[in-house]
Amino acid sequence: MKIYADIQSGNCYKIKLVTSILKIEHEWININILAGESGTASFLKKNPTGKIPLLELEDGRFLSESNAILNYLASGSSLLPKDRFEQAKVQQWQFFEQYSHEPFIAVARFIAKYLGLPDNRKADYQSKQEGGHKALSVMEKQLKITPYLVGSTLTTADISLYGYTHVAEEGGFNLVKYPAIQAWIKRIQAHPNYIGMV
Amino acid sequence: MKIYADIQSGNCYKIKLVTSILKIEHEWININILAGESGTASFLKKNPTGKIPLLELEDGRFLSESNAILNYLASGSSLLPKDRFEQAKVQQWQFFEQYSHEPFIAVARFIAKYLGLPDNRKADYQSKQEGGHKALSVMEKQLKITPYLVGSTLTTADISLYGYTHVAEEGGFNLVKYPAIQAWIKRIQAHPNYIGMV
Ligand SMILES: N[C@@H](CCC(=O)N[C@@H](CS)C(=O)NCC(=O)O)C(=O)O
Ligand SMILES: N[C@@H](CCC(=O)N[C@@H](CS)C(=O)NCC(=O)O)C(=O)O
Repeated sequence: MKIYADIQSGNCYKIKLVTSILKIEHEWININILAGESGTASFLKKNPTGKIPLLELEDGRFLSESNAILNYLASGSSLLPKDRFEQAKVQQWQFFEQYSHEPFIAVARFIAKYLGLPDNRKADYQSKQEGGHKALSVMEKQLKITPYLVGSTLTTADISLYGYTHVAEEGGFNLVKYPAIQAWIKRIQAHPNYIGMV
Repeated sequence: MKIYADIQSGNCYKIKLVTSILKIEHEWININILAGESGTASFLKKNPTGKIPLLELEDGRFLSESNAILNYLASGSSLLPKDRFEQAKVQQWQFFEQYSHEPFIAVARFIAKYLGLPDNRKADYQSKQEGGHKALSVMEKQLKITPYLVGSTLTTADISLYGYTHVAEEGGFNLVKYPAIQAWIKRIQAHPNYIGMV
């Protein structure tokens, strides 16, 4: 299988991490977004949204959306619970990630790290702080009760949320106030097959 | 089971529609967001994100995020494919909905319909138009090829996207340019158990 991605992106790194944990062989094809490589006619034919990550199967079928790719690759593995309610809980956290976490934390990080926090984006950057902290508080509340987001074992929900949470400080989010999140980050990093972002 | 929701919200209406299609008995508990009912201490104990819809099972467990609730309620039914790749495709469309569709179309509709398009929100409203049309174009492309988003049968992916697409005109999105979307809307409305938003 082929993975079109850019390792600097948290959404793409999620896929890198799951392939490392599950030892899934793949070909990693680098796409430079800033150079417009996700907007070319040939890429848009593969994925009409013009976004990475994108998975291409051996038979030429495509799957987009980082969290859908994670769950597809993890299906049948220990990273996805067998219980129907727990499976729904994994998805709950992943939709939360896309709606209430990534748009604040990943975007603030992008403005600070990749754009260098230019004056004309400062208000935008500031506007992301409250929502980002709200998302972190919701995670902290859960991680005070269970070691992983859905219970006692690592699932794809943790990988989804880990993607941008572990680099949240690059978006201006100080994690000192979130001890349960910090412990969870260490727990994930201690996985024998763990691989870092760079 | 109990569903905490507000029928005016597309995210909540998705749940109403799936319970109607699958004839799932439930108690509907109305939550008035504008009156602050999703922000009370007692609601936040049920759902720390302070959002609706929220599902409460008979045993007192809670599940949030509209699309996770949809998939939970539909599990084992004809609305969820058995094939692993098709299941992933359902999720692909649902993550697309939360990330690339709802934040544009639902928010533009909210500003126009509920806030009455006040002067201080006009720029915000305008800024949602391009992203909304981009999302509609991605749907149109797929619906030109297959009658439903994941193929030949109705899935929860269609219900997720139908929620705000069928009222997109209330957010200023003229659907005349999207004939395949219009045909798909009619197809869903022709379901024998269909129920409308109001
Ligand atoms: N919801 C998508 C978001 C993916 C996304 O935003 N990808 C960015 C890189 S992190 C991208 O491709 N941006 C290029 C563009 O939007 O044109 C996912 O989870 O995969
Ligand atoms: N990602 C959530 C979004 C839910 C959502 O935004 N709900 C709105 C009503 S449509 C809400 O509860 N807003 C109140 C608030 O955010 O305080 C889902 O799909 O369920």
